[in-house]
Amino acid sequence: MNASIDFDRRLARFDVRGSQAHARMLGRIGVLSADEVTRIVEGLAAVLGELERGELQLEARLEDIHMNVEARLTQLIGEAGAKLHTARSRNDQVALDLRLYARDAAEVLMARIDALEAALVGQARRTVDVIAPGYTHLQRAQPVRLGHHLLAYFEMLERDRGRLGDAARRAGESPLGAGALAASSFALDRSGVAAELGFHGVTHNSLDAVGDRDFAIELTAACALTATHLSRLGEELVLWASQEFGFARLPEGYCSGSSLMPQKVNPDIPELVRAKVGRVVGDLVTLLMVVKGLPLAYNKDLQETQEPLYDAVETTAQVLGVMAGLVRGLEFDAARLARAVDGGHLTATELADHLVGRGVPFRRAHDQSGAAVRRAIELGVELRALPLDELRAVAPEVGPDVGEWLDPARAADRRDVVGGPARGRVMDEIARAEALLAARLEPSQ
Amino acid sequence: MNASIDFDRRLARFDVRGSQAHARMLGRIGVLSADEVTRIVEGLAAVLGELERGELQLEARLEDIHMNVEARLTQLIGEAGAKLHTARSRNDQVALDLRLYARDAAEVLMARIDALEAALVGQARRTVDVIAPGYTHLQRAQPVRLGHHLLAYFEMLERDRGRLGDAARRAGESPLGAGALAASSFALDRSGVAAELGFHGVTHNSLDAVGDRDFAIELTAACALTATHLSRLGEELVLWASQEFGFARLPEGYCSGSSLMPQKVNPDIPELVRAKVGRVVGDLVTLLMVVKGLPLAYNKDLQETQEPLYDAVETTAQVLGVMAGLVRGLEFDAARLARAVDGGHLTATELADHLVGRGVPFRRAHDQSGAAVRRAIELGVELRALPLDELRAVAPEVGPDVGEWLDPARAADRRDVVGGPARGRVMDEIARAEALLAARLEPSQ
Amino acid sequence: MNASIDFDRRLARFDVRGSQAHARMLGRIGVLSADEVTRIVEGLAAVLGELERGELQLEARLEDIHMNVEARLTQLIGEAGAKLHTARSRNDQVALDLRLYARDAAEVLMARIDALEAALVGQARRTVDVIAPGYTHLQRAQPVRLGHHLLAYFEMLERDRGRLGDAARRAGESPLGAGALAASSFALDRSGVAAELGFHGVTHNSLDAVGDRDFAIELTAACALTATHLSRLGEELVLWASQEFGFARLPEGYCSGSSLMPQKVNPDIPELVRAKVGRVVGDLVTLLMVVKGLPLAYNKDLQETQEPLYDAVETTAQVLGVMAGLVRGLEFDAARLARAVDGGHLTATELADHLVGRGVPFRRAHDQSGAAVRRAIELGVELRALPLDELRAVAPEVGPDVGEWLDPARAADRRDVVGGPARGRVMDEIARAEALLAARLEPSQ
Amino acid sequence: MNASIDFDRRLARFDVRGSQAHARMLGRIGVLSADEVTRIVEGLAAVLGELERGELQLEARLEDIHMNVEARLTQLIGEAGAKLHTARSRNDQVALDLRLYARDAAEVLMARIDALEAALVGQARRTVDVIAPGYTHLQRAQPVRLGHHLLAYFEMLERDRGRLGDAARRAGESPLGAGALAASSFALDRSGVAAELGFHGVTHNSLDAVGDRDFAIELTAACALTATHLSRLGEELVLWASQEFGFARLPEGYCSGSSLMPQKVNPDIPELVRAKVGRVVGDLVTLLMVVKGLPLAYNKDLQETQEPLYDAVETTAQVLGVMAGLVRGLEFDAARLARAVDGGHLTATELADHLVGRGVPFRRAHDQSGAAVRRAIELGVELRALPLDELRAVAPEVGPDVGEWLDPARAADRRDVVGGPARGRVMDEIARAEALLAARLEPSQ
Repeated sequence: MNASIDFDRRLARFDVRGSQAHARMLGRIGVLSADEVTRIVEGLAAVLGELERGELQLEARLEDIHMNVEARLTQLIGEAGAKLHTARSRNDQVALDLRLYARDAAEVLMARIDALEAALVGQARRTVDVIAPGYTHLQRAQPVRLGHHLLAYFEMLERDRGRLGDAARRAGESPLGAGALAASSFALDRSGVAAELGFHGVTHNSLDAVGDRDFAIELTAACALTATHLSRLGEELVLWASQEFGFARLPEGYCSGSSLMPQKVNPDIPELVRAKVGRVVGDLVTLLMVVKGLPLAYNKDLQETQEPLYDAVETTAQVLGVMAGLVRGLEFDAARLARAVDGGHLTATELADHLVGRGVPFRRAHDQSGAAVRRAIELGVELRALPLDELRAVAPEVGPDVGEWLDPARAADRRDVVGGPARGRVMDEIARAEALLAARLEPSQ
Repeated sequence: MNASIDFDRRLARFDVRGSQAHARMLGRIGVLSADEVTRIVEGLAAVLGELERGELQLEARLEDIHMNVEARLTQLIGEAGAKLHTARSRNDQVALDLRLYARDAAEVLMARIDALEAALVGQARRTVDVIAPGYTHLQRAQPVRLGHHLLAYFEMLERDRGRLGDAARRAGESPLGAGALAASSFALDRSGVAAELGFHGVTHNSLDAVGDRDFAIELTAACALTATHLSRLGEELVLWASQEFGFARLPEGYCSGSSLMPQKVNPDIPELVRAKVGRVVGDLVTLLMVVKGLPLAYNKDLQETQEPLYDAVETTAQVLGVMAGLVRGLEFDAARLARAVDGGHLTATELADHLVGRGVPFRRAHDQSGAAVRRAIELGVELRALPLDELRAVAPEVGPDVGEWLDPARAADRRDVVGGPARGRVMDEIARAEALLAARLEPSQ
Repeated sequence: MNASIDFDRRLARFDVRGSQAHARMLGRIGVLSADEVTRIVEGLAAVLGELERGELQLEARLEDIHMNVEARLTQLIGEAGAKLHTARSRNDQVALDLRLYARDAAEVLMARIDALEAALVGQARRTVDVIAPGYTHLQRAQPVRLGHHLLAYFEMLERDRGRLGDAARRAGESPLGAGALAASSFALDRSGVAAELGFHGVTHNSLDAVGDRDFAIELTAACALTATHLSRLGEELVLWASQEFGFARLPEGYCSGSSLMPQKVNPDIPELVRAKVGRVVGDLVTLLMVVKGLPLAYNKDLQETQEPLYDAVETTAQVLGVMAGLVRGLEFDAARLARAVDGGHLTATELADHLVGRGVPFRRAHDQSGAAVRRAIELGVELRALPLDELRAVAPEVGPDVGEWLDPARAADRRDVVGGPARGRVMDEIARAEALLAARLEPSQ
Repeated sequence: MNASIDFDRRLARFDVRGSQAHARMLGRIGVLSADEVTRIVEGLAAVLGELERGELQLEARLEDIHMNVEARLTQLIGEAGAKLHTARSRNDQVALDLRLYARDAAEVLMARIDALEAALVGQARRTVDVIAPGYTHLQRAQPVRLGHHLLAYFEMLERDRGRLGDAARRAGESPLGAGALAASSFALDRSGVAAELGFHGVTHNSLDAVGDRDFAIELTAACALTATHLSRLGEELVLWASQEFGFARLPEGYCSGSSLMPQKVNPDIPELVRAKVGRVVGDLVTLLMVVKGLPLAYNKDLQETQEPLYDAVETTAQVLGVMAGLVRGLEFDAARLARAVDGGHLTATELADHLVGRGVPFRRAHDQSGAAVRRAIELGVELRALPLDELRAVAPEVGPDVGEWLDPARAADRRDVVGGPARGRVMDEIARAEALLAARLEPSQ
């Protein structure tokens, strides 16, 4: 139960990098000789190589990745290996490794977000001229552009990306040098180690440094929100793939068919994506509960923060990855969407706006518009198909150009404010998103 | 079940502020006359005044705060009141109010953090010369300064503050103008409203804007971590107040006594603070679960995001506030702490370091130091009281100055790296913290 | 922060009942005189009367309901009131009150479940002859009877009811007599008190009795599952009320309309019910987290177990109650359901079964059936409308009676096993359910 | 992402058992010949043997354990293997396997509870004469017997065992025959299968049967409470092992030492046990969140209910197992406990009771007792060491036998009610527990 090697093997490359930086620093302050530093740094590289090639068998007897690496290092280079742990404790070592992992994980997740965003923006561009019903309460409400709908997910993911970046930034203080809990009596160059490892600074309290797992919790919380957003997209895809909606066809490989019922296409992947949020939120609860009520500084309980962190990161990376492919391959049924827009009197609001524009007070325009819809329902037609005289019977102020107002595409275009469904506005957002994504791919970053 | 007035009354002043800004904007774009704007803005101020003075009875029949305010406004100023809702929907209105609430709540929480930090730093300054045992696994491990221990919480709270600030920043886009889901056909000045309300920009997708509650979740997640930190402090206070530890005495009003057992002082407040984290984490789970799997855009489910947000904010504000007072009034028993430091051979590490400094290889120094502790235990004395000849019997390289190494205060001072317990380092951190807190209080901010 | 009177007022009648039983017991063992017992019992009844009529102002200064009741009692009857607390502590008193509350709450919830079950069974009886598509993955799969679908919720609720009953049973040991933590030196008649209060026995360890809140957690966990089931029903109602499905119309008062878009009916209540599960699960997490890691016996943290318990019980009672009314008033669109059943080749499985019945090996029958569906899709007809010669072209063994197999209602009836959609089986389950519900209403229970 | 073979391999033996019962039933109703049944049943046994001996490589290509088993069966016995799946779907098959798993898991967990209970009762018997401080608010409150304290955990575990049994019972309906969602057109003998597999009945609604995972959630909820109880024991062990308490020594193998600080014994296992509750609660949240809002009947989301269930069961089994060994090997420091009992005036309540027995009204007795404690504190002695004349100065009614009242062991014995710390009462509970445990081990059960 004490052993963590089954899961902390993920830390191998961070452990090696951290130890190399530690060794170089011990060299700089005179604790290790130049030769010892070289042997350690090269020996660690060799150990990592063995691990990556699957040549080194990790031993449960040695409990964790740190001891496995150190033991193999000492086998390879002899006594110098045993000096590596000078002025360091398992407590600050694992804190360092986990922070390096968390920062790396945030980078990976942000790159996955970029890929999914690119897929969404690509689809948005392709579908900017597909008019689709916009819903509230899962009731058709007003016509929008399909591309506009897809861009809503771009916005959510941008916030997710921001949170991941903030989490990585806050994890960017090196804990090495905090020792077991009370720092070290060696004159360590903590900032040098931090800089070498890409941190922007060092932690400022040794007790906090070894007992803190905020970075894991914050990163997992960011994953939980990301997974929540994807659960919404998963739900929509399940709906769109149903016979009742029939708006979208999932690409092959993201659903499963049946030889018996070839028309039935089970949206397996969207369903799994919808479910995965439960897992990530479970991880978050685990982390918060583990840390609850722990006295300072290090407690063994903290070992239980590793698996939920790994699971949250890997699950989120997986769903982001699979969703990028799925979104890229989505095909929409524009005709079916158009029929949906045409069924539900979705331009009732436009009629009211038209009347307001012609001087009718807001509340009365509202009532007249409702009366027109009721009349259309009585006659069994859509509002836009209601004859002008019928319209005027309930709303005398109706103008001759009312037909334009009741056309869904024009209605969408009339909603011409930042973030609105007007074609120009949607194109603006697509351009903004594309520029953002392009800038992120530039080599200088 | 539909009515939200029992809890959304907290939004009253944000609703009024938002409506005033909306009215002014409608004036600027010609939808309202200057006179109408004036009457609306003043009428809203009057309604808010009535609410704050408790003169206005909120009616459940009107379901929510928005309708209560609007209905009263129309009573007061007549038809102009009915025009206020032009180019706006309940959906973007409530999104606006909640963002204003969230940003305000973050400010309040940050100010509470500042106050608790000030209390901690004040205690740290007072107790910088109190040597205390530093623990790992709740086992005494190495001597630190009590002030150093207390500053660990300063670090945690600084991260909490950063998260709250980030949450507020990300909430800083005005959703007004998103309408019910598809923006508005009026030529709204969204940026003007945003600027007037202190937002740094506007949301960029109307479907997202009305269906998004990320800001509530992110703020609650930040509260959950804050509460987790306080649960750790609560646990430590409970321990310290026990007869077994006996390190601290809680100020009156933060514990309860018994007329029967006057020596018994129940640490009620630390226990409640320890427990409150459960509540905030419960709120977080609620929020994530409510949003799981919701299709776009607005769904009534989102009404259920309000109460957990309010509860998380109010609970966290409460525990921060109560802890500031408690920490300010804490009294420590320096003698008892000193005895604890003296019981447990806490300077065994120093002996090893001393030997390393005299050329003994790290691993051997370690073993010799362990042998010395065992010898001390056999003799029934503390390591630092072991006669020199006994020390030399197990570690011949021991130097004549070993006594200095085995003195707890000097041991702490020898750990002279950034974030370490050396007196100078602790004073550096106190100074840094005080400067930070002072800068925050400056009027220009 | 210490005061609990804002929420523990719910305990008033349990506190009074418990105190009356305690007083009678003290009378039986000679600690109180017969006259004192009478005065206390009657005085407590008077206090409860005042509370129920809203005549007694609860005072925050007295912190909790127990002290408020006792203080008022002493005002009313003088010194005898002060004797009531003999051989009792706040710790076992609150444990008693909460158990009484939990047992009462379980009864209330079970009655609410009965009412919702009755509504479901009533609808099932009305809709047993409505053929509806059965879904997997939200894809139409096989025809069932609508009544069969509704009875699935009856089964879920029966399990919920069982869990609530088990929770109430396990809460059925009286903790009174456990004292503060170490029982009492009086010769208490614990069993007598237990029997008077309807408990089946007494707790067997005083430390456990005052530190245990399992009954609250178990009850809340049962609520969480109940709310989960209702969230599924809520989701289905939202789907069914959408234009795309169009299967059901919600009764007035359970949805909200719009004067502007009279055709739009927002399913507010189903959405809120779907969301409420988040709240109850949040309560459960709170409870588990509060109790995590508490040393024995009583800790003030336990005060924080009250509000989540109340909230879980009240929320679950509310959603059960509202759902009973909603289900009773649901109207289904049988024609629309019939069209849905007819769209999707839902009897493909029946064709395969038909072929197996005529000696075709299972796997081949499967393939032939799939081929027939594909042929139907090519021809743009439903499988059941495929001409016999077309059918025989892909499946030569097809019999002349195949039409009967491809009729949805007959297909459902052919699935004639316990729990299946055959009419007789559904009627069996309706009868079983009705008998169960009738038995529960009998006076002898 | 679709494949589940990495985790559902745990279902292998349940899948085989279920398929054997299904095949026998198909034989009974004439769908399979006797020879086919024999070949299938024997073939499945062979497959299971291969799996258990590690000879069969599971293939991710075949996605899940069901397909892996069926594919290997068909390899071994030819075409008959392909007939096994007649009248069955993956949906009812996996529901069956999971219920068999859940019932088996509950048995395993109950056996682990029995073992831990036995360890606790054994320790209780050994320590019945060790007087220990009973705590509230982690403040010493009244003397109890150590055995009494340990038995509190027996009570908690008994409730856990009851919940596990209830969960197993409620899982005891066979879902086989529910098909994909709408049962089967074959005349299945569902009850026969159920009986063969040890179920007490069959499910009564096919849609519910394939969409239900209540049994997983209920079992996990029972695990969560069990883990919560163990987190309390873990916390107490950490406290008891600290230098400040010093009440207990952990057996070797359950803690870790340090060569450098041989006196330091880190309570690794109690800390990990304390933390593990976070994991199980996380699993519970995952399950509830996955099922939230799913429409009927089967959805792929349900695949995500497997891992949390396995993790909760395995984690709980692990912590129960490790705690049994740890508790068996615990050694208590009776002298240290005695000193703790003697420090804190723990018999103040007894003094009050003594005075009440001599006619002093309760409230006055209380005050006098408090005054006596204050006097003892002034004099720097324990209450029991206060000279009689000092006692009488504050409480004139004190009797000559007061010394007996102030002796901790006698004080405990005076608390002679069911569940109290009196020696006879504790021995009664030990005897009751031992009889219960013995009965469970009897072969007839």
